[in-house]
Formats: sequence, structure tokens, C-alpha cells
Amino acid sequence: MKIGIVGLGLMGGSIAKSLNQNHFIIAYDVDRDAIDYALSQKIIQAGDTNLENFFHGTKVIYLCLYPQSILQFIQSYQNQMDPGTIVIEISGVKTKIINAVTPFLNNNIDMVFTHPIAGREKVGVKYSKDSIFQNANYVIVPTDKNKAESLSLVENLAREMKFKNITQLTKEQHDDIISYTSQLTHVLSLALVNSEDTNLDTKRFIGDSYRDLTRISMINEPLWSELFLENKEYLIEKIERLEKSLSEYKSAINNNDIEKLKELMLEAKRKRMKIEGDDPL
Amino acid sequence: MKIGIVGLGLMGGSIAKSLNQNHFIIAYDVDRDAIDYALSQKIIQAGDTNLENFFHGTKVIYLCLYPQSILQFIQSYQNQMDPGTIVIEISGVKTKIINAVTPFLNNNIDMVFTHPIAGREKVGVKYSKDSIFQNANYVIVPTDKNKAESLSLVENLAREMKFKNITQLTKEQHDDIISYTSQLTHVLSLALVNSEDTNLDTKRFIGDSYRDLTRISMINEPLWSELFLENKEYLIEKIERLEKSLSEYKSAINNNDIEKLKELMLEAKRKRMKIEGDDPL
Repeated sequence: MKIGIVGLGLMGGSIAKSLNQNHFIIAYDVDRDAIDYALSQKIIQAGDTNLENFFHGTKVIYLCLYPQSILQFIQSYQNQMDPGTIVIEISGVKTKIINAVTPFLNNNIDMVFTHPIAGREKVGVKYSKDSIFQNANYVIVPTDKNKAESLSLVENLAREMKFKNITQLTKEQHDDIISYTSQLTHVLSLALVNSEDTNLDTKRFIGDSYRDLTRISMINEPLWSELFLENKEYLIEKIERLEKSLSEYKSAINNNDIEKLKELMLEAKRKRMKIEGDDPL
Repeated sequence: MKIGIVGLGLMGGSIAKSLNQNHFIIAYDVDRDAIDYALSQKIIQAGDTNLENFFHGTKVIYLCLYPQSILQFIQSYQNQMDPGTIVIEISGVKTKIINAVTPFLNNNIDMVFTHPIAGREKVGVKYSKDSIFQNANYVIVPTDKNKAESLSLVENLAREMKFKNITQLTKEQHDDIISYTSQLTHVLSLALVNSEDTNLDTKRFIGDSYRDLTRISMINEPLWSELFLENKEYLIEKIERLEKSLSEYKSAINNNDIEKLKELMLEAKRKRMKIEGDDPL
């Protein structure tokens, strides 16, 4: 199958690497170096900084763009796509994108909105890695327009990429849970680092806990600032829930209430142990 | 050298494992199973649930107790220690412990207050692991009473355990920086998990970021509730700084202020990259 990748960065490159054994991968990116690198490393079979040969015969297109560039790409190029093309969108927010794009979609294009929950604190195709998908979670958010066979094709491709759990959610369910598991987690890690205030050389006084909690603060800020804003209602709600939890710890500490502290800790521990479940450390 | 370990849990066991090649290790714990396990695994050369043979000829004692048990142990048993014994305390808080214990210390005992910044989300000697000390950070908080030769012996033992950075701090410096790098980090991870509120099966919607940030919420709650309270002034101040950082993100998101968001993110990213420094991912 000829598979197109629009945007050959960390995610586009990782998708190419995970599918290029069984498929013909063509990529488009405005960055010449990214294309040349991927060609030289045989990550893709074809690629260019223009779309001349991109659409013809391409059955599936992975759209690996920042949220705010998706609508524009669809409006500009969907007429050049082969009828029946399946466009797979992969960003970390869904409601705003689906609502923005769906009204403009040609009837002969099937656009499937998905979220591969995987990444790295790096930017660019050089850091792409197919192993980030191994045993990772994948969410598909079907719309009324999606054909059943498109959804199963997308799911089969996700299995080929080695994703483990593939779940269908509504756009609201997706944005709600992801504002917690992903966006809030990033806000927290960032805020922890922002709040550092010391004359000492911090790295001499950290353990694995600080290192692990702050790794994702080495963030791709153009992407994540968009993600935060595109999901702002859910994210604000989650930040406020977190503020409430924090203030429970604060008042237990202020009141020397060791029993309340242990109770909060036990609640968290039990919840977190459930996640380990079939996935022991 | 005969080295005694009081409290044969995760930390005591890990210290034993990292020193038992070059030294004779004797352990004391109230838990018979812990002693038997460590003897059978040759983690220690001797051990018992009483202190009968513990003190005689023991030059160095690692006190691996929860903060609130330290004073009582010293008061009860220092008279049985050989003159010149060096007692090494290893908990995560310093000011309260030093202030509580120092006035009661016999003159012929040299007690050195230290903090090996290492651990695991597990409890008990069975999970002990000497590799947790490898390349980790170690802090020594000297008091006026400490002899120079005791401090260098403690430092040499830390090097033997494979600690990388060994730093001397005042008790205030220690509690200040550790309230940020360690205790605040744990509060955050816990609060993140406490604030979970969904009908969905969370583990199908998480990535490495959530997994890494919440690992330490599988906490040893009797220990950490003590640590939080023993360092409450500094910790409350750090929670409040974090709340301020969080509210900066919240208002930038509420105001759709993408430039402010990127600025906050870049500040965090730069601070965090400095920590990578000689320690690249």
C-alpha cells in the first residue's frame, strides 16, 4: 500500500519506521533536510518538499501536523487526493479539530481522527523511533461520516505499529481523559521546574523522582502551547481539581494531621497500583 | 571493618549489599523474616532481632530508621556503643532531627547526619538493590561536634557505595533544597493521582509521561507522612511557589495567551536542560 506522511518530524518519522517494511512510504515536509535524511536512512521510500507526486495512488495519509495547521492543509489539498483516500489525523486534541474540519471535508475523503499516545522529549525525524509505539495506547474517535472499513484499516495499521490497547472514544471523552493524563501532566512537570528557586546547583540534590517528573518539561513549546489552548476548558478544570488536591496536602501538613496525610497517600497509591495491573514495573 | 545496620529495610539492605564485599555487616531489625532473608542471601554476615552482639567492636553504625524513631534509639542505646563509634543517620530531613538529637548525644559518639538521595517505590529488604546508589547524589550535613576524620570516613564509605556527587550543606540548605527536589515532587505526584476522576479505564489512555510522573505515588506512606511533617515549613513554602507557577499557566490558558505559554515553557525547558548537563538522556 502507498502510505503518505505529511509532516516528517518525530511522529511522522516514527510512523514511517514502523510501517516501511510492509508498505511504500512517501513523505512531504517543507524541510529539505528532514526529507534527505529520511531518504538516506531508508526511513521513507520517496519524499519531497512539494506535493507533486504525493497524492496519486496514495490510499492512506497520516497527517502529522500541529493542530492549527490541519484545517488549512485539508482545505488546500483535499481536491488533489484520490477519491476514497483515508486521512488519519494524529494530534492530542479532538473536539476543536473535528468541529473545525468536518464541515469542510469532501465526501469522497474519509478522515479518521486518532491519538497515538506516545512521544519523546525530542523534535525532528532524526529522533524518531518506532519503539515508542510498542505496547502504547491508541485512541480512535470515530465521526458519523467514517466508514466501518476505514476504521478497521486504521486499527489494523495501529496493530502493525505494535500499539497494545486501541480504544474508541467520543471526542468529548477523549479530550476529557487526555486533558488529565497528558496535558495536565505536562503542566505539572513544567510548573515544578518553573518554581525552582535556589542558589545551589540543583542537579547535585536530585534523585530519580525529580528527574522522572521533570523530563517532559524539555518540551516542544510550539506544539504544546497549541495543545493546551485547543483543549482549554477540560484542562482548566483538571488544573483546578489538582489545585484542590494540592490544598488538601497543604492543610494536612499545616495541621500536622498525619492520619489525613496517610489517608490521601493510600488513596493515591491504590489508584496508581490499579494502573500497574497487567503492566508490572 | 565491622559495620552495623539498624533497620534492615530497603535502604538498610541496599547499604549492606553495597558494602558487604569489603566489610563485616551486622544488622538489627525487629522483623525476624528480614534478618533471616538477609542472612540466607548473604546480604549480611550477622544479624538478630536483639542487640546483644551488635555494638561490640562495631566502628560504624548506619541508622536506617524513620525520622521519629531516631532520638529514641540514640537515647536507649548509645551507652552500649563502643567509645568512638560513628553513627550515620540517613533520613530525608535534617534540621528537626539534628536539633532533637544533638543535645542528648554522648561525647564519645560521633553522629554524622547524611542523606543518600536514592530509593525505590518498594518496601523491605527483599527489594534492596545496591545499584540505586550508583551515580546518585549524597549530602552530608556536618555539625560542630563532628570530627574531620569521621566526615572523611563517611565520605569514603559513600564513594565505596558508588555515589557520584557528595556535597556538604548546612541543615537549613539541605532542608530547603530537598523540600523542593524530593518532598514537593512526591506531593505533586500524589496530588496528580488523587485528582483523577473518570469512569474510563485510565490505564488505556496514558503514555510514558503519566506513568513516570506517578510512579512515586506508590509511596511508603508511614515514612513519607513523617518526612512531610518534619520539613513542613520549607515544604509549605515550596507548595505555595508551585501553586503560583500553576496559576501562571492557568491564566495564560484562560487568556489564550500563547506567547506567555511559550515563554513559561521555554524557561522551564532551559532550567531542565541545565540539569541534563553532564548527564545526557
